[in-house]
Amino acid sequence: MAYFSVGVDLGGTNLRIAAVGEQGNLLEKLTLGTQIALGREQVIRDMCEAIQQITQKYENSDTLLGIGIGVPGIIDMKTGMVRGSPNLPGWAGFPVQAEIERRLQTRVFLENDANVAALGEKWLGAARDAEHMAIFTLGTGVGGGIVFGERIWHGMTGMAGEFGHITVEPEGVPCGCGNRGCLERYSSATAVVRMAREAIAKNSASELSRAANSNAEFSAKAVYNLAIQGDEEAKRIFRCVGWALGIAIAGLVNALNLSMYVVGGGVSSAWDAFSPTIFEELRQRSLVYAATDPCPVSSSKEGRGAAGQVDPGGPTKTIVTRALLGSDAGLYGAARLPMLAGA
Amino acid sequence: MAYFSVGVDLGGTNLRIAAVGEQGNLLEKLTLGTQIALGREQVIRDMCEAIQQITQKYENSDTLLGIGIGVPGIIDMKTGMVRGSPNLPGWAGFPVQAEIERRLQTRVFLENDANVAALGEKWLGAARDAEHMAIFTLGTGVGGGIVFGERIWHGMTGMAGEFGHITVEPEGVPCGCGNRGCLERYSSATAVVRMAREAIAKNSASELSRAANSNAEFSAKAVYNLAIQGDEEAKRIFRCVGWALGIAIAGLVNALNLSMYVVGGGVSSAWDAFSPTIFEELRQRSLVYAATDPCPVSSSKEGRGAAGQVDPGGPTKTIVTRALLGSDAGLYGAARLPMLAGA
Repeated sequence: MAYFSVGVDLGGTNLRIAAVGEQGNLLEKLTLGTQIALGREQVIRDMCEAIQQITQKYENSDTLLGIGIGVPGIIDMKTGMVRGSPNLPGWAGFPVQAEIERRLQTRVFLENDANVAALGEKWLGAARDAEHMAIFTLGTGVGGGIVFGERIWHGMTGMAGEFGHITVEPEGVPCGCGNRGCLERYSSATAVVRMAREAIAKNSASELSRAANSNAEFSAKAVYNLAIQGDEEAKRIFRCVGWALGIAIAGLVNALNLSMYVVGGGVSSAWDAFSPTIFEELRQRSLVYAATDPCPVSSSKEGRGAAGQVDPGGPTKTIVTRALLGSDAGLYGAARLPMLAGA
Repeated sequence: MAYFSVGVDLGGTNLRIAAVGEQGNLLEKLTLGTQIALGREQVIRDMCEAIQQITQKYENSDTLLGIGIGVPGIIDMKTGMVRGSPNLPGWAGFPVQAEIERRLQTRVFLENDANVAALGEKWLGAARDAEHMAIFTLGTGVGGGIVFGERIWHGMTGMAGEFGHITVEPEGVPCGCGNRGCLERYSSATAVVRMAREAIAKNSASELSRAANSNAEFSAKAVYNLAIQGDEEAKRIFRCVGWALGIAIAGLVNALNLSMYVVGGGVSSAWDAFSPTIFEELRQRSLVYAATDPCPVSSSKEGRGAAGQVDPGGPTKTIVTRALLGSDAGLYGAARLPMLAGA
């Protein structure tokens, strides 16, 4: 008999549910709208119905290990409550995990959405060969997660991985958190649109301005489309995305010396527009990266050989790369949670 | 029969050796000068003689678990070699560990000096009640170390904990590593003296100038003495130390959410001059710190209660504090290495 589990990606817009086998094989995937406006009870009812609909199909042949749910907010791991989530009003302090366990009569694991994305990329994505890894998720905001071995690093109170609020420019752009110069102010989709609007305010005849006027929902994607067409202002904006991300990743590389740093989230689709700047910053700002650079700028045979000799038994290169699983990373990572907890 | 081990702090100036019991009780401590100029062989011979002199006294009654040596450089953990150390010319690539094991016929553990300082403070110092911790050592440069549980976090190639080269000001002071605005350029003893000399260049009639002229070896300590006497320029320099350290610690708090961050090294003697700025920066720049602040600025009973409720089973406060063991941290941490490896 095979084992499977169900992963849930509870987003502010979409509620996605998947049944996943132990080998990471997708059995079935379902996408619903998240009816946030109808309240918590409706969302939980929709979620439970969809989970039951999926599990009933497979429970005759396979054994359900449990349900993993990725939630956009800080989770209290001890109580299984959402501690706070701007995208899920009315959920804070409610015993989500216990309630869903009661309704479905199976084990439920709650986890932060960036953490499950990290776990998904670690299990089946860009970091599947890495021992330890960190992920930066570039979406409306910037999230983060760290996986040591197969364990998500939660820190003392479950708040580890708040990469979006690492200071990259001490006197930089003000952030909602009360700080200035947070990574999130430069490398999120929101930041791309803000920088584009600032550029438009300075030059209303630009391509950016035309794109904004022709599109009611002017987005980071529209700015990216201009960047790949060669628009200098749009290219400059993505260089700024990479600059901030490079500073933040360089700090983590110096502090943790992991082998793998993954960049995911919607904005990572613009990888080719911002990643060259990440690597420029990394080479300048991280002596640990420079010592473990897989593609050194002056890549002499001697240099590579010397780096390779350092630690013959393990990896010696720092890989910074884009995520592979797109929006499914969180779904797979959530499904992985019951598997890691054991049968 | 009791167990003991020997810790060695191999510094650029002093060679210190201690026999330490399993409970952290000091049996004996010996300080020699490090005869760097006489070459590697002389230093190793001095070290081995001193270790033998100490161990012979206790080996009749107690069992020696091994020797731990803290070295100012990057250690290749697999081969027991020093990979590079500016303070120990001629040591890179030499099999230090194997050579000392051969001469003393006991197990030898080599470790980076900031890492053993971290382990010492974790075992017997400021972090003895913390589950996980990080240390910043402010000396000639700025070093760092992370201890998860009782294990030093080495990272992929043993370079984890390079906190001194975290960027705190992207267009800041150039650093020898090729970057600009590294923490080390603001928070080391070298940085304090540099900032004092810059202040003197602008105002030659200052107290700083007088102190520099009356003291051939103008040091960070002299600047600190002026700061505690109320000299505004000296106070400003230490605020800069705290500012940079606050930015770097805030980044780590956001990324790792540990319960304890310790500031050690010689410059930490000036804790009262720079720590208020650390806490200002932390409260502004780390939402994780703000959520776990042991002394919130507006410390209402409600606020403390709410924070306490978050995670009733474990610590919920982020402690940032000065090291307790002074220069003995590395000595105790080095002695701890053979104990952690088991008998």
